[in-house]
Amino acid sequence: MTNKDDLRPNEQTVTLAPASDASLRFIGKIRTPWRSRQQCPRQGQIDGPECQLVLDLVWHEALRGLEAYEMIEVLYWLDRSRRDLVLQSPKSDGQTFGTFALRSPVRPNPIGTALVRLERIEAGTVYVRGLDCLDGTPLIDIKPDRCAFSPKAPPKPAAIIPR
Amino acid sequence: MTNKDDLRPNEQTVTLAPASDASLRFIGKIRTPWRSRQQCPRQGQIDGPECQLVLDLVWHEALRGLEAYEMIEVLYWLDRSRRDLVLQSPKSDGQTFGTFALRSPVRPNPIGTALVRLERIEAGTVYVRGLDCLDGTPLIDIKPDRCAFSPKAPPKPAAIIPR
Repeated sequence: MTNKDDLRPNEQTVTLAPASDASLRFIGKIRTPWRSRQQCPRQGQIDGPECQLVLDLVWHEALRGLEAYEMIEVLYWLDRSRRDLVLQSPKSDGQTFGTFALRSPVRPNPIGTALVRLERIEAGTVYVRGLDCLDGTPLIDIKPDRCAFSPKAPPKPAAIIPR
Repeated sequence: MTNKDDLRPNEQTVTLAPASDASLRFIGKIRTPWRSRQQCPRQGQIDGPECQLVLDLVWHEALRGLEAYEMIEVLYWLDRSRRDLVLQSPKSDGQTFGTFALRSPVRPNPIGTALVRLERIEAGTVYVRGLDCLDGTPLIDIKPDRCAFSPKAPPKPAAIIPR
């Protein structure tokens, strides 16, 4: 996806030095039913198919207490996207928008964010609904929804380590 | 913030190889009224003080069309946070939670996300309300709010480049 041939009418690239301001560490992988971009829904639906956030072993403990939330935020790395477009023509219809006026995967830092419904957590895997990304997408972060400072239930005893 | 002395009761770290799965390129800086963590509000308020997203020159064009949205999502890099905690005791009250059950800045990939109100855009600077981060925080991304597929107004002529 870094080939000039991929450009649509009126799209504009910039020349950039290599990205080197900060480094990410993937924390796991996302499993979804979608194996190609064409299959991916335009936007995830809360009643869509169940997907899995498969955490690397080292992070399993870090899920403790997440089960109290109904809605969680997921950050992931859109690893197939070019990063040098400032103007994009998403529909190839002559309309062109700045990259930051779009939720396109093509952006200087191709991080996707999704708000998903938490179904359950089993052995380091978080089952959710509401994603729209490709199967195998690298996982970056999981957080409770920022609006969900009202958890669906009081924190469970299992979520608390006594002194 | 990588000193063992920073740990609170029951907090747990893991040993990690250097982060090297993907690299970020900062796109600008965030200006806020807060110069220390103690000054930062716990959560940004939509009617809070005006803050600025100051884009690097190369990305100014990428803002085109963003003015049509009332609410936008901002991603930023919490550059002072340690990244090796799996369990955290945010209030030092004996309650301990997994990192992914918190919106703490301390996480394997310290990316903050905020939903903010767009006030105006002037010369590559986006004026917003609703942030809670430190002055000088590196900016990673700006997107229209995922719920705002209903822009506040039809795209303006300035947002469209004719064929």
